[in-house]
Amino acid sequence: MNTTSYEDHQRRWIRNVEQAERIIPLIGSLYRDRGVVTSIHGRRLINLSAVDLLRVHAYAAEAEGVELSVTESAALLRAITRVAPPPASLDVARLARLAAAERPGEPLGDDPAALDAVIRAELRGVLRGGDTDVAIDEVLERGRDVVLYGFGRIGRLLARILIAHAGNGRGPRLRAIVARRGSPDDLVKRASLLARDSVHGPFDGTIEVDEQAGTITANGTVIQVIYANDPSEVDYEAFGIVDAIVVDNTGRWRDREQLSRHLASPGASRVLLTAPGSGDVPNIVHGINHDSIADDDVILSAASCTTNAITPVLKALDDAYGVVRGHVETVHSFTNDQNLIDNFHSGDRRGRSAALNMVITETGAAKAVAKALPALAGRLTGSAIRVPTPDVSLAILNLRLGRRADRAELNGYLREVSRHSALRQQVDFVDSPELVSTDIVGSNRAGVVDGQATIADAEDVVVYVWYDNEFGYACQVVRVIEAMAGTHPVVVPRRREVTLASG
Amino acid sequence: MNTTSYEDHQRRWIRNVEQAERIIPLIGSLYRDRGVVTSIHGRRLINLSAVDLLRVHAYAAEAEGVELSVTESAALLRAITRVAPPPASLDVARLARLAAAERPGEPLGDDPAALDAVIRAELRGVLRGGDTDVAIDEVLERGRDVVLYGFGRIGRLLARILIAHAGNGRGPRLRAIVARRGSPDDLVKRASLLARDSVHGPFDGTIEVDEQAGTITANGTVIQVIYANDPSEVDYEAFGIVDAIVVDNTGRWRDREQLSRHLASPGASRVLLTAPGSGDVPNIVHGINHDSIADDDVILSAASCTTNAITPVLKALDDAYGVVRGHVETVHSFTNDQNLIDNFHSGDRRGRSAALNMVITETGAAKAVAKALPALAGRLTGSAIRVPTPDVSLAILNLRLGRRADRAELNGYLREVSRHSALRQQVDFVDSPELVSTDIVGSNRAGVVDGQATIADAEDVVVYVWYDNEFGYACQVVRVIEAMAGTHPVVVPRRREVTLASG
Amino acid sequence: MNTTSYEDHQRRWIRNVEQAERIIPLIGSLYRDRGVVTSIHGRRLINLSAVDLLRVHAYAAEAEGVELSVTESAALLRAITRVAPPPASLDVARLARLAAAERPGEPLGDDPAALDAVIRAELRGVLRGGDTDVAIDEVLERGRDVVLYGFGRIGRLLARILIAHAGNGRGPRLRAIVARRGSPDDLVKRASLLARDSVHGPFDGTIEVDEQAGTITANGTVIQVIYANDPSEVDYEAFGIVDAIVVDNTGRWRDREQLSRHLASPGASRVLLTAPGSGDVPNIVHGINHDSIADDDVILSAASCTTNAITPVLKALDDAYGVVRGHVETVHSFTNDQNLIDNFHSGDRRGRSAALNMVITETGAAKAVAKALPALAGRLTGSAIRVPTPDVSLAILNLRLGRRADRAELNGYLREVSRHSALRQQVDFVDSPELVSTDIVGSNRAGVVDGQATIADAEDVVVYVWYDNEFGYACQVVRVIEAMAGTHPVVVPRRREVTLASG
Amino acid sequence: MNTTSYEDHQRRWIRNVEQAERIIPLIGSLYRDRGVVTSIHGRRLINLSAVDLLRVHAYAAEAEGVELSVTESAALLRAITRVAPPPASLDVARLARLAAAERPGEPLGDDPAALDAVIRAELRGVLRGGDTDVAIDEVLERGRDVVLYGFGRIGRLLARILIAHAGNGRGPRLRAIVARRGSPDDLVKRASLLARDSVHGPFDGTIEVDEQAGTITANGTVIQVIYANDPSEVDYEAFGIVDAIVVDNTGRWRDREQLSRHLASPGASRVLLTAPGSGDVPNIVHGINHDSIADDDVILSAASCTTNAITPVLKALDDAYGVVRGHVETVHSFTNDQNLIDNFHSGDRRGRSAALNMVITETGAAKAVAKALPALAGRLTGSAIRVPTPDVSLAILNLRLGRRADRAELNGYLREVSRHSALRQQVDFVDSPELVSTDIVGSNRAGVVDGQATIADAEDVVVYVWYDNEFGYACQVVRVIEAMAGTHPVVVPRRREVTLASG
Repeated sequence: MNTTSYEDHQRRWIRNVEQAERIIPLIGSLYRDRGVVTSIHGRRLINLSAVDLLRVHAYAAEAEGVELSVTESAALLRAITRVAPPPASLDVARLARLAAAERPGEPLGDDPAALDAVIRAELRGVLRGGDTDVAIDEVLERGRDVVLYGFGRIGRLLARILIAHAGNGRGPRLRAIVARRGSPDDLVKRASLLARDSVHGPFDGTIEVDEQAGTITANGTVIQVIYANDPSEVDYEAFGIVDAIVVDNTGRWRDREQLSRHLASPGASRVLLTAPGSGDVPNIVHGINHDSIADDDVILSAASCTTNAITPVLKALDDAYGVVRGHVETVHSFTNDQNLIDNFHSGDRRGRSAALNMVITETGAAKAVAKALPALAGRLTGSAIRVPTPDVSLAILNLRLGRRADRAELNGYLREVSRHSALRQQVDFVDSPELVSTDIVGSNRAGVVDGQATIADAEDVVVYVWYDNEFGYACQVVRVIEAMAGTHPVVVPRRREVTLASG
Repeated sequence: MNTTSYEDHQRRWIRNVEQAERIIPLIGSLYRDRGVVTSIHGRRLINLSAVDLLRVHAYAAEAEGVELSVTESAALLRAITRVAPPPASLDVARLARLAAAERPGEPLGDDPAALDAVIRAELRGVLRGGDTDVAIDEVLERGRDVVLYGFGRIGRLLARILIAHAGNGRGPRLRAIVARRGSPDDLVKRASLLARDSVHGPFDGTIEVDEQAGTITANGTVIQVIYANDPSEVDYEAFGIVDAIVVDNTGRWRDREQLSRHLASPGASRVLLTAPGSGDVPNIVHGINHDSIADDDVILSAASCTTNAITPVLKALDDAYGVVRGHVETVHSFTNDQNLIDNFHSGDRRGRSAALNMVITETGAAKAVAKALPALAGRLTGSAIRVPTPDVSLAILNLRLGRRADRAELNGYLREVSRHSALRQQVDFVDSPELVSTDIVGSNRAGVVDGQATIADAEDVVVYVWYDNEFGYACQVVRVIEAMAGTHPVVVPRRREVTLASG
Repeated sequence: MNTTSYEDHQRRWIRNVEQAERIIPLIGSLYRDRGVVTSIHGRRLINLSAVDLLRVHAYAAEAEGVELSVTESAALLRAITRVAPPPASLDVARLARLAAAERPGEPLGDDPAALDAVIRAELRGVLRGGDTDVAIDEVLERGRDVVLYGFGRIGRLLARILIAHAGNGRGPRLRAIVARRGSPDDLVKRASLLARDSVHGPFDGTIEVDEQAGTITANGTVIQVIYANDPSEVDYEAFGIVDAIVVDNTGRWRDREQLSRHLASPGASRVLLTAPGSGDVPNIVHGINHDSIADDDVILSAASCTTNAITPVLKALDDAYGVVRGHVETVHSFTNDQNLIDNFHSGDRRGRSAALNMVITETGAAKAVAKALPALAGRLTGSAIRVPTPDVSLAILNLRLGRRADRAELNGYLREVSRHSALRQQVDFVDSPELVSTDIVGSNRAGVVDGQATIADAEDVVVYVWYDNEFGYACQVVRVIEAMAGTHPVVVPRRREVTLASG
Repeated sequence: MNTTSYEDHQRRWIRNVEQAERIIPLIGSLYRDRGVVTSIHGRRLINLSAVDLLRVHAYAAEAEGVELSVTESAALLRAITRVAPPPASLDVARLARLAAAERPGEPLGDDPAALDAVIRAELRGVLRGGDTDVAIDEVLERGRDVVLYGFGRIGRLLARILIAHAGNGRGPRLRAIVARRGSPDDLVKRASLLARDSVHGPFDGTIEVDEQAGTITANGTVIQVIYANDPSEVDYEAFGIVDAIVVDNTGRWRDREQLSRHLASPGASRVLLTAPGSGDVPNIVHGINHDSIADDDVILSAASCTTNAITPVLKALDDAYGVVRGHVETVHSFTNDQNLIDNFHSGDRRGRSAALNMVITETGAAKAVAKALPALAGRLTGSAIRVPTPDVSLAILNLRLGRRADRAELNGYLREVSRHSALRQQVDFVDSPELVSTDIVGSNRAGVVDGQATIADAEDVVVYVWYDNEFGYACQVVRVIEAMAGTHPVVVPRRREVTLASG
């Protein structure tokens, strides 16, 4: 290649960076002033750097097969700003495709009025009678108070996500964490664990500790740290917290009776358990059955990380092929419930060194699928092998389907599910011969299908689903919190139904 | 418990140790002078310490449900010495049971003549016309020369086992290893790698290096180290090695044409590849198809560690239930074919850090089962996940059987297979709620069924098979070497057929 | 805390985010149009997200003890834009402090003319006669071509950094990488290894492969992949590459004669070895002796990661206290030069499993300090222990000083060195009781002093220096490349001399 | 090499094995009937296999430079049996050297009377008036009762060693362990953890559980498992345990007042803490100050693993060179006191993932040296780095000596110390270029000097000391228990004083 071409490419990149920098304030303003979350194929645009924005644009091309230029995005963002929609989640790439389809071959920004019309049309019927220009304060009141009871690995990741999503002050409001006091400098240690993580890296923002007030302030979110050994000792109202969703991350209590003890704390009104619930506690997997949450469901469970990872993929496969029977084997990262080196543990095999061993463990994750997806009741068995990695797990779905499956078609179908279906927040699909587990760290999906690994042999298939058992799960929990809080935004354009090519 | 009882227990133990010490020379003498390998339920008694002997006796009680005292063993060992059998593998525990059945309720040693008769009866028909007192030199000539071409992890473990089995000078004789010279002090480094192993611990014995002669002497076995970059450079006869079995541990050559290059080396007469062979190279899994080795099969493969681990269990299940279809997922320790940290590798995903990742890898191990067990051709798929452990792997057999399986019966059947069947050298069975992978390090079986993990759901079962992918495999390779050398001893009493309880 | 305060904090944060978004285009424009790199205490502002910008501002407060608001930064950035300086590296925080000192108590932006004067004053004398408003093209021509010979871990990180710094097209220009072809899909695999890293995470940007052209394009940088087994096979000019700096990452050649073979490749004019050079090859540690690079020094070494980590701290200590003698023990992450599991290796102990062992290794890193810092010749010994972590190492400096040291004063001095001295790009200082090695991943400094660990006992001290032996080292190498290319920007305000409080 | 030589070597080995088998009962009988512990250069001969015995003989040649044949050992063992000494620890190799010196050039067994005379001479003056043929029951009464309070990693290893040393019923008698009940199947789990260990491998012997009686019987030792949350709940006498040494492995209590609570338990008379004691609790390092234990020292500490590892080496160096000042840096395996993945921990940095990080930790191990070795008070500082290995640590002694040290002489001195001095049970010395940490697993010494790593630079030296921080420490604790119980055997021949060659 000659130097001119080298410089051409570089100049083009630099121009793109320049444009990306310019749309950053637009994206921020829509979010803060209107409650509008903009995204490109499920990648949120909020608080990205210029290079990150270009990366997301490149992803759009990969996901859709259609290029999306920053110039086009800029035109659309300006149009959205003009239209002034009520709070919603808008996919810029898909709006661009709709607009392009209206006026094929013409640059997007050329006819602003046409662009505005496309956006208005998509908004119609979706939102309160289609009115736009509703003041954000009419729609998004002060958000719902949220309390994290237990501040272990899941608790801390929930805090990170809730803080990152707090950018316009309208969503769930993280108000407090409840923990046992572990040392005189407990508060500083909790803040430090929030600030630094051996797996997920440093906190993205600023953290301050006020030992006097007993608070940690992270990116402007003031979090009260409440020390208690039991829910009965806690009075949230004393800290101005009302009508709060208490997210129980301790795993100590699993059934309705035990969990309802949280409701006795003044200021608490709902409970979400971040572990499988027992008895009649509904297990909610976002994307599958979050619509079933009723106003009087005050005690809910977000099921386990594995159940969240596999249920959406199983639902998609059941929809298209029918799942006759299956076994789910999970190769799972170790968790703090195991020992570092051999020592006593009340559970089978979990006492043996997690850093040195493969450890077979029982798991109810496969059976629990039926709690969210009753169609699969009695059809699944499951087991898990813990291995010496700190995060990211792999669920192997050995399935007998109701009809023969072609490998390419099955992969194509799951790919479409991940891009366009109602499950696209839950399911991702990758097709890389070099992908390994650490690449999944930080994935915000419940599960990521590894297309290269898929095996299809007539009705028998094996589908491999990666998941960040910490972060991906925490994202699903936050979606349930948002659903409970009524703040999960309406999605525009609507997700479309995905069916099997041969179906 | 009071002190008397404490001391009673202790005194009994001390008496047992004393007796165990006394039978050590008996065991050694039978082995050296007669070529008789004594064992208790597959545990060899040769070169054990007194406490180890007691441990094996305790295992007999666990395996059979019948106690075997050292006094009984001593009586039997004395009887065997009197009978002076030809070279054979004698199971002391099972002979004891036969003898006890003859004269129920009476101490074993009371009637020496009766004991001798039992042993003679078992030997009859099994060995050359039943003659005993055949001089060892008539039966076991100087053993067959063996050469290890390639001295990596499998090569070194083969050396360790061949040396440990060289105790009477009649089996396969490790004569040389062939390697590329890697440094000026290569010989010392090779010896050091044989002497110390991060996974398998120190070499059990003594190692001396003679730099002048280019030899390593380990427990009296003088091993010539031959440096060569290619088989064409090697002349074994120059070192007095004749008619040798060349064990190729390099994995560089897989088909008949490539492997036959070893036969051009003077002194080499047969080749055994310790990796799956391609094309028409027979894959031998000891216990399954080693009887099929013909005298003119000069090029053979010992298949892969995983194929060795799963084929015997699959055969047992196919015999009893019929295997309709299955998927084998292997959770596999990393191997030196992967990288420590991310770097280039010609294979998919194998370039990514083995120490940090779960890595999906393709494996032909399931398909290769059919090479040894044609009945399963076309019925199995397979894949593997490499995880950050250095040794021991777990094969998960997801099977659809030809008939419904009851979990307890299936476990009971596999347990019996591991204790009494013709596959008992290949299959082990453990039933512990605390077992993890490191416990399997050093297992000499091809595979170890984890009974606690078995899942049975009508015709669908999941069976978990642990294996020491290094040592267990090396033991299988040595069995094939012995079969090729004609030195695998006849087993007395004969193994019995094991069938399903409900069958 | 009551809700009002909660919302006050949140509103303030949101306002800050808004302002941060607005300065992003200012920062980008200065960088692209003027070659002005803006930073806050060594943290570059280029291509940060809004939250990252706020994080850097918070760091300024921590580092200086003086708050720096985004409003102040915005005022300064506008002033810099007005002043239109020639290419330089400007520290916004330190300029703000100078401006505040001029007009104490008054908001920074109130008197634009005064602000401009401060900036002009600082620029005077530093740059070509103090002229501002020099067109960038007069100063920064098309950058210097750079080629990476060898594309292992250091090579790939150099590529990442060079690409990230290529944002205005004026610095070193990464033009090509040279590697051995490892597989038919080599190009895709190289790109994939650049895109994903098990330790450093995904590439920040977009990567495209053009198999026809044999190029990888990353963030607009078109990189020619040249396959060769030896420098003699390479013709850079054929790809339009001229006068290139060849960065040798193979470690195969160490002395002048061997390395000069690169110069025979058409298009190559200088060589930089990313490993310690032997013989008379100068070892350059940026910050210590990069000023000594003469125009006719065509073959240079960037020394080792450890030498880079320790030399700046040793220099600082020698300046203040005098270093009489010392021993440097390095606890070092494993590298790909070791084996995954035990196997042959020509080096002592390096053949033993890196994933399972502490491994004592020889290192010349301590002795090599004297090559960059002759004052310490003969005063240091060193050794290293490799341990099972994939990245980040810890150098432990056991020193006997020329005078008694007070722990607090020594820490305070090193802290100042890290904030204000000429070594501040090389030395960082942290003071956290919770810091561990993974926190250092991604540090761009040569070494990070762990203040909490410092031990001082009269003249004997022990100082602990963390370093990202991959990324921190790669940053130092890039600084040397920039120095060789003449593109390392002038720093404004000038770094100040730091001396011992009691000095 | 030709085949004859091959067979000559093999035949010689086989003859040696045969002889080794024959001395096994002799060794056992001396131990059981006379309380005589036989060893070769610190390697106990009791319960070894024949090959292990040959290995120890080979070690003698390596350690002494003089061959010791099994024939010679056999002659000596027969002589010892004839002489019938009282309980003692007899070094066969050193007695052989003394005997050979008496009659140079003549085979050892030729003149039995002369051999007996040599042994008698060595015994004279050492033991109760030199009388031999004292019945064991007169000297070794029933041993001292020992209780393990706490059954973690150190507790379980103490149990393993005490059981292995219980072979003649005369030493410390492990009677009970005290633990908190962790689950309904606690007893089975405790037994399982004793039976299997991810680092140290399987228990060498047999283990039975009697759930009715609440006992674990291991190799004939009946161990009562007592469940208690506090010493005040325990009555040892109820189980027939009297005058017991309570070994506290919990680390919960460190000072005299807290530890004395154990003495209130009926049946307990002395306490040994397996952690550093605080206040005036004497810290005993066997080999250094165990002779200082007075009869009324009822509360003792066995110091830490690191203090045990370094104090003997420091003493040896101080004796020969004088230690002016030093810093001890320990690269330490993780322990269960750290977390598997980041989580709250009351100690600094210990909450961060032990499996992923280097973790700087404070240690009092260097300061604690002075408690056992007051001469070094105030001269040492220390710190530790925890790294991701499960066992074995490395202490790096940076020392300034009182005189110049020559590297070869210093190594030679420490080698002699490890072979012949009064510290030879504590100090080992290896000189291998391939040694790594896992090779040290199972070392019974307090510390192992790595001679290849030694650095000497005039008065400044760096000495590297490996130690199995679990097993080596447990061995030292057992030696203290034996000292407290008065059962540590007298050593014959007496250890000799080792001095510096140039001294």
